[in-house]
Parts: sequence; C-alpha cells; structure tokens
Amino acid sequence: MASVTGPEIERLIQLLARVPGLGPRSARRAALQLIKKREQLLGPLAEAMRVANERILTCTTCGNVDTSDPCTLCRDERRDPTTLVVVEDVADLWALERANATTGQYHVLGGVLSPLDGVGPKDLSLDRLIARVAEGEIREVILALNATVDGQTTAHYVTELLAPHGVKVSRLAHGVPVGGELDYLDEGTLAAAMRQRTAM
Amino acid sequence: MASVTGPEIERLIQLLARVPGLGPRSARRAALQLIKKREQLLGPLAEAMRVANERILTCTTCGNVDTSDPCTLCRDERRDPTTLVVVEDVADLWALERANATTGQYHVLGGVLSPLDGVGPKDLSLDRLIARVAEGEIREVILALNATVDGQTTAHYVTELLAPHGVKVSRLAHGVPVGGELDYLDEGTLAAAMRQRTAM
Repeated sequence: MASVTGPEIERLIQLLARVPGLGPRSARRAALQLIKKREQLLGPLAEAMRVANERILTCTTCGNVDTSDPCTLCRDERRDPTTLVVVEDVADLWALERANATTGQYHVLGGVLSPLDGVGPKDLSLDRLIARVAEGEIREVILALNATVDGQTTAHYVTELLAPHGVKVSRLAHGVPVGGELDYLDEGTLAAAMRQRTAM
Repeated sequence: MASVTGPEIERLIQLLARVPGLGPRSARRAALQLIKKREQLLGPLAEAMRVANERILTCTTCGNVDTSDPCTLCRDERRDPTTLVVVEDVADLWALERANATTGQYHVLGGVLSPLDGVGPKDLSLDRLIARVAEGEIREVILALNATVDGQTTAHYVTELLAPHGVKVSRLAHGVPVGGELDYLDEGTLAAAMRQRTAM
C-alpha cells in the first residue's frame, strides 16, 4: 500500500514486524498502541532497549544472557554447585527457571549437533563444559535437551564426552505432559510413558 | 520466578509484555530474539522508537498519526477532495488504506459515542468535521464506523449533524465477508446480506 504515515513511523512498523510473535498486521496495531501510550510505553521501551543493547553480556561461565558477568544465576550462592543442567539455548534455561525445575547450575551449549545445518562439536560450548566438569565439584550433569533427533544425538555425544570424568549423566524423562490427554499424544510419547511408568 | 537475568533485561521483558500482540511468555521469547539480533534488530528498533517518540504528531486536519502536519495523506494531491471518509480511530484509517478502499480524504473522530463509557459528542472531533464540510468542497461523507451499537449510534448522530449542510451521507455496506462461509456467519449479517442483495 502507499504510505499512510511518515517514514519514521513506517520504519518503526517494519522493525516491529520482525519481532517474533508480531507479524506485519500486528506490528501496525502495536505501533499505534505504542504511539497512543507514548509516555507510559513507547518512550520507556525505547530507553529500555537502548540500555539493554548497551549492557548485554553473555555469561562466560554458563552462557546465559545478562548485564553482568558472571550472570545473576552463576552469582547466586544458594544454587547447587554439584548439579549442572545442560541446555541448548538461553530460552530453555529461562523456561526451566520459570518452572522452578532445578536449583542446579546451568550450561548453555549454544545449539545442538546438526550435520544437516553444518553444526558440529566445534560450534558448541563443549570445551567449556568439560572444563567446568573437570574442576571436580560437579557430581551430576543433567542433559535438558529437546526430545528431537538432533537433541538426542547431542545428548549421546555429550554423554560419551563426559564418560572419562566419572560424573553421573542423566536426561529429562519422557512421558505424558501434565494435564495432557492420552488421546492427543503421539505413539512415541505414549510408548515411552508406558515403559517408564512409575509405581503409585 | 526469581530473576534469571539482569534488571535491565527484566525491564525490557516487562515493557515488551505490554505491547499488544505479545504476552508475558512471548515477551521473553521476543527479548531473547532481539538480543540475539542486536545489530540488526535491537539497536535499530531502539533508535526507531526514540525517533518516532520524538517526532510523532497528530494531523490537525484529519487526526491521522504522522511525523508531519498536515499528514502524508492530507498532503497527497491525488486524493479526492470531494469525498470525506469518517473513521473511529487511526487503526481504521490504516485498515481502509491497506484495502485501497477509497481515494477520499479521511476524518478521525477519535472514538464513538458511548454513554456507558462516558463518551459524549464533546469528546469526538465533531466541530472539526462540521468545519471541514462547511468549507464547501466535500460532496459525500462516508461513515466507515464499526457495525456495533455504539458505531451505528454515532453514525446516526453524525448524519443528523450533517443534515443542514446538504452533503450526501453514506455508510459501509453490511454483508458476507469476501471468502466467508455462510455457515459461520451470524444471523444479523446473513439477514442484512439478503436484504441488500445485488443483481448479478
């Protein structure tokens, strides 16, 4: 369509449309709402983005995204230093924290092995993982990787890498999602849930 | 959940969660993507928001949002000066432009009459509408208001206001949405579409 507004606002809409969760249409709606709420939303958000952009760091210990290094989690002394939870990316780390799933430390691999996408061991934070385990304090490494082919391939690869270090290595359970209905589950999940059934 | 990241990033997430179309969960995902694409997305978006926030104006002629006044549409000499399309808000104006629905000028009321929400005639841009019509060039006013009770009440009110000025006043047609299935349509729309049927 021809331009209905100034180039500065069109540019804002175009950039908003590239934010995950927004598309071209919701970007227009979002832009109008932001403009309506200039004082409370547009101004503060512009400033928050500028500040975040200036201060973002990747934690050199675990790979989390933060504005300090070591990150908030790695500096938290209440966390269990004997358990290390390995995740694919920061989103997974945040998801596990949202679920209060563990009090362990984290390690972000930065991806999973994927020959098709040209991702090999060198592209993942594996040396750093081995170095952390070699320090000797970690007793269990939990592989919290996606239950996809690439995720599981990576889990097996990491398990072999860790074998000489004498730590316990585990992975997340497969099973029926809490609140899930059997009827809608795929056969693989159902079979896994049956095999790994637990006593009442 | 306890904080997993620095306060600057948490603030970014909180503000993103208030953008229409994003919720708390997609705000986290959006923030991580923005951070991943700092150079291409986070930085430019921060800057675009800052610039937009600084330069936004409301067109004193039609009420459109722009960075110039008169706005891009009001300055466009190819538009028909004899047709005035009245809309509730800027989002509706943009939607009509997206559809290439008219080449007329626009007038944004800034709301619709709504006694329940305490919106009366004084709260709408009605004086300005009458002034524009009184200038004499406009021959048809098209009321492109929502087909809701408040929208239709407002349409009738505006029609009466305009009666002394001798302009043609029309409203959008009711009917079956293009691509719509009769089966899923409400009875009111179906009945209206039948009454307003057109010859093949």
